[in-house]
Amino acid sequence: MTTHQYDERLHHLLRTAAHVFAEQGYHATSMRDLSKATGMSLAGMYYYVRCKDELLYQIQERCFMGVLEGAQTALESGTDPGDSIDRLIRHHVTFFTEHMSEMKVLSHEADSLTQERQESIDSLKKQYVTLLADLIGDAQGEGAKADKRVATYALVGMMNWIYTWYDPKGEIEPDQLAEQFSEVFLHGILTATTSAIPNGG
Amino acid sequence: MTTHQYDERLHHLLRTAAHVFAEQGYHATSMRDLSKATGMSLAGMYYYVRCKDELLYQIQERCFMGVLEGAQTALESGTDPGDSIDRLIRHHVTFFTEHMSEMKVLSHEADSLTQERQESIDSLKKQYVTLLADLIGDAQGEGAKADKRVATYALVGMMNWIYTWYDPKGEIEPDQLAEQFSEVFLHGILTATTSAIPNGG
Repeated sequence: MTTHQYDERLHHLLRTAAHVFAEQGYHATSMRDLSKATGMSLAGMYYYVRCKDELLYQIQERCFMGVLEGAQTALESGTDPGDSIDRLIRHHVTFFTEHMSEMKVLSHEADSLTQERQESIDSLKKQYVTLLADLIGDAQGEGAKADKRVATYALVGMMNWIYTWYDPKGEIEPDQLAEQFSEVFLHGILTATTSAIPNGG
Repeated sequence: MTTHQYDERLHHLLRTAAHVFAEQGYHATSMRDLSKATGMSLAGMYYYVRCKDELLYQIQERCFMGVLEGAQTALESGTDPGDSIDRLIRHHVTFFTEHMSEMKVLSHEADSLTQERQESIDSLKKQYVTLLADLIGDAQGEGAKADKRVATYALVGMMNWIYTWYDPKGEIEPDQLAEQFSEVFLHGILTATTSAIPNGG
């Protein structure tokens, strides 16, 4: 098997497992269910992961690495903290609109991993939250009315909640969704009204 | 049994069941587990609910009725749409900081009810989202940059996500949390910086 074939089959296994976990829950899913869903033999799956716990770990790890890399790129390429946050929101939102099942698994199975793997995921989460909180702190500057950690979780919440309601095939395109979240988070919903006062009144 | 005693025991059953469902998941919990946790006999529990599905329904129904009533009060007592949103956020956030287990159950077991009960809950959810979206639309006025439905789910997401990270016994009081969410949602995190420009520059 070439490296490319290996990567492709592992990718197929992880994505299919994420769909099944999202649909019926991690604990209710057996490796046999996954064998049926992926079309791979049990031995074939065990070539890639040692157990179901490692499968869940790899799904979670890939997602957090994905958003973390996007955040680091946003931080490096942004012209100022507000622009970096805008870029980060676009990356996080478009990444997860392409990974809705993974997103559901991430939030519903946050406590399902065994301890060591859980700690490894928690460390990635912490890195992401810290990076985001520092960036938000910089963007707020002095006189900020919201604690940067509260603002960080407000943003993470609005972005992650999409797995409960958003349909990527619906009317609103992922990049429009990201743009509007960015607008709400950076400027608030009253912007249009308040900015109209100096011009109009 | 007096009405008061009846209500108290039902309340005890619903709150305990919410804790157990939040801890180990709805499907993995048996009525026997709940009997142990509540200290009530199986027959005693069946006096209040016909089945586990009805128990989950009552937990969800009470929560949605709670936030919906708070929203209606906020709407009636607010001096303008922005003020009503502020009141609504305070109610939603403080209500759920007192019902963290229920909140987890609401989001993790959103699809666990049988069809008829599910439809009844979906109808309450829809009422809440519609009320909120209309209020947000009014607050935004003309020239809004974010679709009112997107803004609504952004707000619901930031408020509901707290079950994953917030500790009601920690440093941030529930009313401070609500105040800061309200600030972020209505005015955005860049407020302090941008409003400093006309005065300072």
